[in-house]
Amino acid sequence: MKLLDIKSPQDIKGLSIDELKEIAKEMRQAILDRSSAIGGHVGPNLGDVEAIIALHYVFDAPRDKIVLDVSHQDFAHKMLTGRAEGFLNPADYKSVGEYTDPKESPKYDLFYAGHTSPSISLSFGLAKARQLKHQHHNIVAFIGDGSLSGGVAFEGLDAAAKLGENFIVIVNDNQMAIAENHGGLYDNLAHLRETNGTAEDNFFKDLGFDYIYVRDGNDLQALVDAFKSVKDSTKPVVVHINTEKGLGYKPAEEFKETFHFRKPFQESTGALKTASNQADYASITRDFLLEKIKEIPDLLIISSATPLDFDFDAKVRQEAGVHYVDVGIAEQTGVSTMAGAARGGAKVVYPVVATFLQRAYDQLVEDWAMDKSPAVMPVWAAGVRAMTDLTHLGFWDIPMITSIPEIVYLAPTNVEEYLAMMNWALAQNRHKVAIRVPSYSVEHASGEVDKDYSDLNTFKVMKKGKKVAIIAVGDYFAKAEAVCKLLKEKGIKATLINPRFISGVDKALIKSLEKDHKLVVTLEDGSIEGGFGGRVAQEVGKTSMRCLTLGLKKAFVDQFNPDELEKKYGLQPQQIARLIKKTLKSI
Amino acid sequence: MKLLDIKSPQDIKGLSIDELKEIAKEMRQAILDRSSAIGGHVGPNLGDVEAIIALHYVFDAPRDKIVLDVSHQDFAHKMLTGRAEGFLNPADYKSVGEYTDPKESPKYDLFYAGHTSPSISLSFGLAKARQLKHQHHNIVAFIGDGSLSGGVAFEGLDAAAKLGENFIVIVNDNQMAIAENHGGLYDNLAHLRETNGTAEDNFFKDLGFDYIYVRDGNDLQALVDAFKSVKDSTKPVVVHINTEKGLGYKPAEEFKETFHFRKPFQESTGALKTASNQADYASITRDFLLEKIKEIPDLLIISSATPLDFDFDAKVRQEAGVHYVDVGIAEQTGVSTMAGAARGGAKVVYPVVATFLQRAYDQLVEDWAMDKSPAVMPVWAAGVRAMTDLTHLGFWDIPMITSIPEIVYLAPTNVEEYLAMMNWALAQNRHKVAIRVPSYSVEHASGEVDKDYSDLNTFKVMKKGKKVAIIAVGDYFAKAEAVCKLLKEKGIKATLINPRFISGVDKALIKSLEKDHKLVVTLEDGSIEGGFGGRVAQEVGKTSMRCLTLGLKKAFVDQFNPDELEKKYGLQPQQIARLIKKTLKSI
Repeated sequence: MKLLDIKSPQDIKGLSIDELKEIAKEMRQAILDRSSAIGGHVGPNLGDVEAIIALHYVFDAPRDKIVLDVSHQDFAHKMLTGRAEGFLNPADYKSVGEYTDPKESPKYDLFYAGHTSPSISLSFGLAKARQLKHQHHNIVAFIGDGSLSGGVAFEGLDAAAKLGENFIVIVNDNQMAIAENHGGLYDNLAHLRETNGTAEDNFFKDLGFDYIYVRDGNDLQALVDAFKSVKDSTKPVVVHINTEKGLGYKPAEEFKETFHFRKPFQESTGALKTASNQADYASITRDFLLEKIKEIPDLLIISSATPLDFDFDAKVRQEAGVHYVDVGIAEQTGVSTMAGAARGGAKVVYPVVATFLQRAYDQLVEDWAMDKSPAVMPVWAAGVRAMTDLTHLGFWDIPMITSIPEIVYLAPTNVEEYLAMMNWALAQNRHKVAIRVPSYSVEHASGEVDKDYSDLNTFKVMKKGKKVAIIAVGDYFAKAEAVCKLLKEKGIKATLINPRFISGVDKALIKSLEKDHKLVVTLEDGSIEGGFGGRVAQEVGKTSMRCLTLGLKKAFVDQFNPDELEKKYGLQPQQIARLIKKTLKSI
Repeated sequence: MKLLDIKSPQDIKGLSIDELKEIAKEMRQAILDRSSAIGGHVGPNLGDVEAIIALHYVFDAPRDKIVLDVSHQDFAHKMLTGRAEGFLNPADYKSVGEYTDPKESPKYDLFYAGHTSPSISLSFGLAKARQLKHQHHNIVAFIGDGSLSGGVAFEGLDAAAKLGENFIVIVNDNQMAIAENHGGLYDNLAHLRETNGTAEDNFFKDLGFDYIYVRDGNDLQALVDAFKSVKDSTKPVVVHINTEKGLGYKPAEEFKETFHFRKPFQESTGALKTASNQADYASITRDFLLEKIKEIPDLLIISSATPLDFDFDAKVRQEAGVHYVDVGIAEQTGVSTMAGAARGGAKVVYPVVATFLQRAYDQLVEDWAMDKSPAVMPVWAAGVRAMTDLTHLGFWDIPMITSIPEIVYLAPTNVEEYLAMMNWALAQNRHKVAIRVPSYSVEHASGEVDKDYSDLNTFKVMKKGKKVAIIAVGDYFAKAEAVCKLLKEKGIKATLINPRFISGVDKALIKSLEKDHKLVVTLEDGSIEGGFGGRVAQEVGKTSMRCLTLGLKKAFVDQFNPDELEKKYGLQPQQIARLIKKTLKSI
């Protein structure tokens, strides 16, 4: 049986272990071919090939419910559930996404689960439904060791332990998060591995789970045996499998962190196809922080498991020493650690990915914003040019952060402004400052940038015009410059404003526009509802001016092309200029 | 030494255990006197009197840092740190709040920490600062057993376990959350209690902590000995103390759940001073859900440890049986369980407190909103009339929920509309519906209410007028009616609109207002930035009309009187009517 012939898990049920091994081999090649061509989560998917084959061999999806955590580890699952062509046929690569997707496969993909750690709690919900419906299928949550550091995974284990019925948690232990793991739990996992699962200290048993260990989690026979032994179990059980991330591809075995997710690469060497030596915000931030470590003895840099986002690779992390801490995939603790260390008198920088910061909303409000704990939080991967998967959209950070009092959210428009804001934020002792790191393009200032941002919510008029004023946030400022150029060609001299502050409004400035403007236009690289535009519209609403608020729709989009999405949303400079002209004519 | 003479922890350092016991006795009386007079967290504060005295006796605050989790258990701490009069002198009762408060005591109260579970992560931050500053004080996180179910507590334990230096976690195990505990962890705590701390299965040890157990956590000598033994320890250690919630007051010992927090009560009997038999939204919801359980075989009602909010007391919970599940203080898992059970085909209702829902923002986005998982989430304690402590404000739910796509957020204006919306939300299979339960007053509909809300974002004109249109959300609708009355007296016949939907805007309706209105006014019982008003202002901005958006300020407030706050914010009917008149005149 060839991989391409497998249309559903039923097709592998009768196969021998050796035949399954052949499929595993074919899968690994497909994972490599696809990921090297279009980029992808190489390491996680190479590591769990056997586990996922064994899962579908032993359990009976879709009757049995399999929930994959942080579902970028799902390639083998997709290949077994009717989507092999998306991995075998280059023309079809883009027909399947990285994550499980109920739209792609309503039968086999129960959830998106693109963020880490929700699988056990989601499965607990499935179990409650099963109970009410008097059903008797297996429920299997498949979760990586790295994802166990996220608090919701613990909550799920805690709740599910008491179910008193079938509930299977596969812990796919590849001894890595994205970077190395951090936390006491990982010593326990190591001890369990060292003792072939026999150690007395056993985190899972403590919580009430039965437990079995599979020493070689890439051995199909061992996995099949283990899964068979827990199938239809009537108690919650953890199957702890020891797998190797990146298995079968030398570069991925050796460089586990950089091959967690890899942009298109040469399959023969593992080298990136288009390696860039250009400075970007990651390397700019790294250099800035390394410089600051020398200046500030009590500087603490926190990451919640994503240090490569600001180019803190293993070597840099070592160089940073005590100034750097990785709290694991645990953004709640990331924010609380930031707040606690600030309260303890340290200078703190916590670079965090916008979509993952969603996990720490409560900590932003309760632990950081309301307290006297000045710190700096650069927000990564925000906006339309950041991540383009449904589950990782950077569209909501402005509504999320700016709805919270006392957090100053700054949006730099270029590198120099970014660094000036970082410098100011670190030097001052009063405000809690988030900074929206541009993800659109690396722009440079045309002149001097301001050094001091202590006069909160003061917008800056960059060009004085009349009739229409454009207030453009952060990395959409360059777009507004293009719009102004187009308008100028049509004889309209627009006022162009860099607001810098997106968590407040310059009320006096807006009021002052009224005397020679008829229209205020806002432009932001984020969801238009609950964001900056709404805040401005509330002020403009008090005047005789009209207001247009442009930005991304409050809508879920998936695997999109940013250019096309902007066109669809009317955000190309030409479109914006046309809308402004039309509106001005109608007033 | 009398309690009133204690001005700082220094004052108790030389005392004997017997003298400390006298102080404990005096404290218990003070806790009872104050709580029975003005209401308060009776049970938690009676239970930890000895532990907190011993903490301050052994450790040297403010040099040593003591962080109290879910800090409503802080009365003894406040009495020892210069605030005894706030408990002993009825005239001063209101001078101290329920929670630790860095404004009240910058030296001894490091954080607010009013929500459960952050203490360990905050303390981890303190430890990182200590490290960078080469300091050597003790860091002590004091956390209840109930709070351990919140994921961030686990994250904190996981991170702190690896510190390799002084870090003391006191687990105050009173065998209760607000209601009973739920989760596998609690079996482990029980096993530890049963074995006097000697059980081999030990959750804390397995994470890497040293561990000691105090069998009688209300015995001062035992506590002092235990704390002395860990003071200046150079490794992370857990001190597990077995305390009794409500100790020393019979009614609180017997009815632990209802005495967790108690409104003013008769000290002699424990009976509430003003017991009400009037129907409120809690009892209305309870009755509705109990009725629905009979109708819907696969109905699941979820609580994250706050069942009394919708009157699900122990008896009702038993009656609900398999239809009810408490996931513990774990809102992330609350939302994921809702999503999972909905995906499993169950009908799900998850009543949740607005301020605690902040913990599940990511789950709302990633697990609920983007998936096909219709369910119903009544949002409790939202608005200015709900909770009035800084850490428990119900001001942010509208910005938080309505910034997320695909969640339909409904705001009923009265009981009949609430029930109609609940009925519709449960009957339909398409939308994810949140419902903002009124907290202002129990209003009743004057006529028939709509049964069907499937035509999303359609606002309802309740009175047709001209010049000014008032769009009033949920429990502020009654206020808008009062405003209309006042305006009518001045000859202004306002249009009055019940939007019902706060997560979207009726664009056609707003556009249609333009022909005979000059002003649109929104009124919402929530933060005005990022909320409903901004959304409306964005639409009004496209027209020739002006817009005023009225609501609560995006600002932290604490221990406020709702009437006074509304007055300060210009939200009394008279003030609103005046503003409208003035604005109309100026246009």
